[in-house]
Formats: sequence, structure tokens, C-alpha cells
Amino acid sequence: MSVADPFAAPCTDERLGLRRCVRISKPLKLDSGATLTPVDIAYETYGSLNADRSNAILICHALTGDQHVASDHPITGKPGWWTRAVGPGKPIDTDTHFVVCANVLGSCLGSSGPASIDPATGLPYAMRFPVITIADMVRAQQMLLDHLGIERLAAVIGGSMGGMQALVWPTLYPERVEAAVIIASTARHSAQNIAFHEVGRAAIVADPNWRGGDYYADGNAPVAGLAVARMAAHITYLSEAGLTEKFGRRLQARPESPDGAKTFGFDADFQVESYLRYQGISFVDRFDANSYLYITRATDYFDLAEDHGGSLALAFAQSRARYCIISFDSDWLYPTAESRNIVHALHAAGKAATFVELSSPFGHDAFLLDAPEMNRVIDGFLKAGR
Amino acid sequence: MSVADPFAAPCTDERLGLRRCVRISKPLKLDSGATLTPVDIAYETYGSLNADRSNAILICHALTGDQHVASDHPITGKPGWWTRAVGPGKPIDTDTHFVVCANVLGSCLGSSGPASIDPATGLPYAMRFPVITIADMVRAQQMLLDHLGIERLAAVIGGSMGGMQALVWPTLYPERVEAAVIIASTARHSAQNIAFHEVGRAAIVADPNWRGGDYYADGNAPVAGLAVARMAAHITYLSEAGLTEKFGRRLQARPESPDGAKTFGFDADFQVESYLRYQGISFVDRFDANSYLYITRATDYFDLAEDHGGSLALAFAQSRARYCIISFDSDWLYPTAESRNIVHALHAAGKAATFVELSSPFGHDAFLLDAPEMNRVIDGFLKAGR
Repeated sequence: MSVADPFAAPCTDERLGLRRCVRISKPLKLDSGATLTPVDIAYETYGSLNADRSNAILICHALTGDQHVASDHPITGKPGWWTRAVGPGKPIDTDTHFVVCANVLGSCLGSSGPASIDPATGLPYAMRFPVITIADMVRAQQMLLDHLGIERLAAVIGGSMGGMQALVWPTLYPERVEAAVIIASTARHSAQNIAFHEVGRAAIVADPNWRGGDYYADGNAPVAGLAVARMAAHITYLSEAGLTEKFGRRLQARPESPDGAKTFGFDADFQVESYLRYQGISFVDRFDANSYLYITRATDYFDLAEDHGGSLALAFAQSRARYCIISFDSDWLYPTAESRNIVHALHAAGKAATFVELSSPFGHDAFLLDAPEMNRVIDGFLKAGR
Repeated sequence: MSVADPFAAPCTDERLGLRRCVRISKPLKLDSGATLTPVDIAYETYGSLNADRSNAILICHALTGDQHVASDHPITGKPGWWTRAVGPGKPIDTDTHFVVCANVLGSCLGSSGPASIDPATGLPYAMRFPVITIADMVRAQQMLLDHLGIERLAAVIGGSMGGMQALVWPTLYPERVEAAVIIASTARHSAQNIAFHEVGRAAIVADPNWRGGDYYADGNAPVAGLAVARMAAHITYLSEAGLTEKFGRRLQARPESPDGAKTFGFDADFQVESYLRYQGISFVDRFDANSYLYITRATDYFDLAEDHGGSLALAFAQSRARYCIISFDSDWLYPTAESRNIVHALHAAGKAATFVELSSPFGHDAFLLDAPEMNRVIDGFLKAGR
């Protein structure tokens, strides 16, 4: 890890395979009016592009996700975040499809973000990085597809913030998308969604190590604030029932009290506390605090209808894609009503759309966990398009 | 404000009226096994105790509430937190009832808490204050009633954490309580409740000004961490629908953009952001961070059934009170299911219990807001007891 860009992979230019990165010198015009150049995009590909280049699937990752969809994470060493759904013989079958996943713009796993070097100064952008939107992330992905020579996508697939990108794709590039799978997502961030993100941002900027974002030089990052932000967000990824099932009010076992007993103190007495603390502490090793600020901001700005005169149906008007929308009944971050809202607009726009609400106790995170029903729905939807 | 005990009222010993405080030298034995002495209890009384001392009502306040139930807050100058329900001619009628409200043990408005002076050292307790429970708060209130010469309560009434105290009262002192009103509360803290509190505590202890709790000497309190804790908690007090109704995705008006326009930056672009920030910032003027740690811990430990062999019905077995349980349909902090759980146990124990779920868009905070239906229920329940 270099000090300037601690999370970045080396940006070489081998096109296909794992842990790739491309530096694109063509300027990227952003929604804010700013222009970004160069644009680094870190990505991975799985499987082979077929002769007529018709089997490409773009997978879009969630807020703190990454391009390592089905390969080991370079920092944590853990298996990719969607190995359950992506691979040979899996619903997103890399034996038959060419799968691409890119680290989103603004992130910290090799794509351009606040930890990247600003060519104008030779120093990390930090908070001088331009504010980005979900559409800007999609524009960067489109530059990558141009680089890879992929004209059309058999499908774009994403969960959560990845679903937002999958929604935007056919609105910006209607000629290029044949199908879109949007899982546990929304067409716009609600006031409550914004509020939770604002708590996380407040925790980061309250950390004295944040220093206006200029913490890269000495490596003293605002990890305490970032951990708190992650803890707050993590609660929203789980359902109340799921938390109860997983932890209830069970006490944490300790050497001095192996059966678990109240300590009447401020240690993590309850299992749910130590679980949350672990989520916070382990997150800071793999994520940059400034990236967290930028990406949460991007999702807060997300309101697809607003960009089309307030009509979500109008947003979909030019799309040529068929859609598969999946929600989970215990997801209170992006509840089923948000998915239904998308489906209604797709129908109003005369688009082909299938919708299913799946039952799961695991809340928003259900799409990342063992979800055989979801896998069957994705599998069937992709095969139906052939 | 003194440095040592910045939120404390002077502890004089005039019995009745506003802004009273009593120092009780009798040791208070706590659930943790520790003993606290002396015990300061700050309180207010409204109305007059009748000749046979049968018209006393104890009001129990919520997590960050105080004894100023119907009088101006000494720091903020704002009207008392329950002026809508308490006063002459109000449902809790101070023309006919003698109303007592005490600052809970562990708080910072004059009752003994971490900001109080430890007589053993002459310095503030800080984190050397003993860990307290909801039952300990009730024991302290019982000491106050002894001091005031009140043998029996016509009713004990509380919302949220106040409801927990109202639940505990007849279990600890069955001879002393004729009626209990429990509003927007629960018989035990859930894993999700604990998780939200743990985020707030993590934000406080992550603030470098916290310094293990010893921040009283120089007045540099961990206000940034406390503000984040308040922001996180505040989201749980409001409903998603209420937030949407109140703010939606409306942008914050600014001098340079009076109609509200995205700034593509990290200012509070959305109204809900500036509202939350204000909630955080204004809270730190009136509350002590260590008290926040202790009181959230007390609610996390709360599990009334656990103290009675796992049976909530058994907890109520000795009670002679009749009960009124009120929930709000949009309260996701302590949802109606928690109230129903209490009512089932009361019925199983053969107690007189009435239960009503009220409709409100305002979430958990509904009981603090204009709630005419709640007022009618309380009024009817109290009158039915005469």
C-alpha cells in the first residue's frame, strides 16, 4: 500500500482477468459540471466474451462493495462478495457469460476517488475530489466498456446501490442494455435513508483525525469515526427479526464468565454489541473515510424521477431493456414499496418487467447471503432472454 | 453552572414546588451490588397533596428527559416536555392531583449521576459512578416518595423509558401503586434497540475529548461524539413516513439559492440533514455525555421477565395495580407488538389491563406531541379509578 493511495491496485492495462485497472485520459464530464481526468477504473472480468460479443454482463456493486465479486479480496483475503451468485454453473454463469465488475467512481479499491492523486497538485484529491452521482458512476463504467470493446450488455445487474446503477444504465445508454436486474434497491433515497447517511458522515467529520479530509500524508485516518459510521449503517442492513434471531439479548461469553453474565459495565455485554463493534473495526481496514463521504452523498442525491421532470415512467421512456425487480420482505432500508414504485413506473412506460418479493429474515443484506430463490429468479430471467 | 456538576440545580430541601432537590443519606443498594450514598434527587411537584394523601401521581421521564415536565427547562428556557398532558384541566390534572416528577438516577439535571461529586474523592464520579438499572431508578424515586411522605400512588405514568419505570414500580412496590400507564414502551430492550444505543456510545467514547469520562475538570466535553449519538437516536424516534411528510427530499434554502438547489457538496443540502444536525448540536448544551452512557446502558439491561425467571406474567404476579397500555402504530423503536406482549402477560397474570394502539404519523415521539386521543385515553383511565 502506498501512502498516497493506500487502497489502490497498480493501474496497469491488461484487459481481461482479475485485479485489472485502466487509466482513461478522455475527460469525464460529471453531473456537478466538473470534469475529471484521468479516470482510473479498477475492474475484474470473469469468463470469455463470445464471438459476437453478446454475452457480457455488468455487475454493479453496493456502497462499500468492490470489483472482487467472485475473487478473493486483496486486503481481507475473504472470498468475493457474490460468489454465491457468480461463477461457473451459478445463476450468473461465467461458463456462458462474460462478467465485468468495476470499482465505482469515488471508491477506494483502485478506481478514481478522493484518495487518488490529483494531477494538478501531485497530492491526493481528498475533499477536492469532485462530488459524484450514481449517473457519474455509470458514465465511468461506460468508458470501461468502450475500452473493453463491449458495445452491448446482455444484462446489467446490481443490488442496493448497485441496483441504482442498473436502473440508470438503460436511461443513459438505452442502445446498450438488453436486460436489467435490480435487487433490494430504490429509485430514490428517502429522508430516512439520507438521515442515516448523515449520521455516518457526521461521525467521520467529527473525528479529529479527519482534518478536512487531508489525512493521507501521515496515515492517521479517521478510523474511529468511520467505524461508528459503519456501525450505524450496518444496523440498517439487518432486520429487527434477523437481529433477534441471531443475537436476541444473549450475553457475550468471557473468560471470567464462560456462560455469559452481566458485568454491569461498559464492555460489550451483549453479543450484538461485540458483533457491531467488530463490523466497525474490521471495516476501516478496507475502506477510505473520504470515499465513504462521497459515495453516501452520491446515493443521497439519487432520485431518478427528479432527473426526468419528476416522472419515473418518463425516465424509462427510452429504455429498450426488460427488467427484473427483486425485493425482500424484511428489508427496511429499501422496502418492497420502493421496488413496487419502480415496477409501476416501468409498466406505465410500457416496459417488460417482472417483479418478485422474496421472503427472508435477513433484511437488506439478504441478497448477499444464501438466497436460493433469488438465484432461481435471476437464472430464469437471464435464460428467458436468450 | 459549576464545573464539577455543570447541569445540577442547587440541592436544597424545600419539599414542594418547582426545581427542588433532596440529598438522601440513606444508602441506595443497586442491582449491581454497589451502594450509592448520598443520593441526590432533583424533582418538581405540581398541585396539592390532598388530606388523605391519595391523589399523588408519579410521572417518569424518558431517556434524555427531565423533571421539568410542565415548567420551563432551566437551560433551554423551553416549556416543559409534557405541558400538553400535565397541568390544570389537562388529562393529568394538577387541579385534582399532586404530580411528582424526578430526574432519574444517573442523569444530569440534579439527581446523582456521573457528573456528581464522589464523596470518597471530592471529584466527579465520571465512569466510577456505579452502573445503574431501571429498577435502581425506581428505588431512588421510592426514596423520594418516602421523603415527601407519600405512601401510595394513585398512578405512575411514563412514556418510553418512563414506561419501563412505570412497569417496574408495581413489581417492586406492589402495595404502593394503584394504577400504571405505560406509553410507547417495552418490557425489554431488543437486539436492535441495544445496537442503536451501542452506536451512540461508540460515538461518545471515540471522541478524544471523552478521555475515559474524565472531562469535567476543563469543561472540554465530548460534544461532537454526543451530537452524533443524538443524531443516530433521533432517527429512531421518528417514523419513516413522518420524516417523509416533514422533509421528503426537500432541499435546504440558502442565501445563494433561496429556492433550494443542490450544491453538489457536503453542506446540509437536504432539510432533513440540517434538522438532524440541529438536533445533535442543541442536545449537547443540555445533556452530559457520561449520563448518556449510563442511561442507555440501563435501558439495554432492561428485561423485566428475565428478573422473574423468564416469565413476564410472573413479574406482574404481586401487582395490585390496574394498567393502561398505549402504543403508536408508527413507532418502530418500541412497536405495538412490544405493548401487546405486556398486555398478554398482564392478562395471564389476571390483572386489569386496557390496551389501545393509536394511529399517528410521528413514530415513537408521538406521545410527546399533540396527541388528543392519547390524552382522552389517559383522562378516562385515571377518572375510572376514582
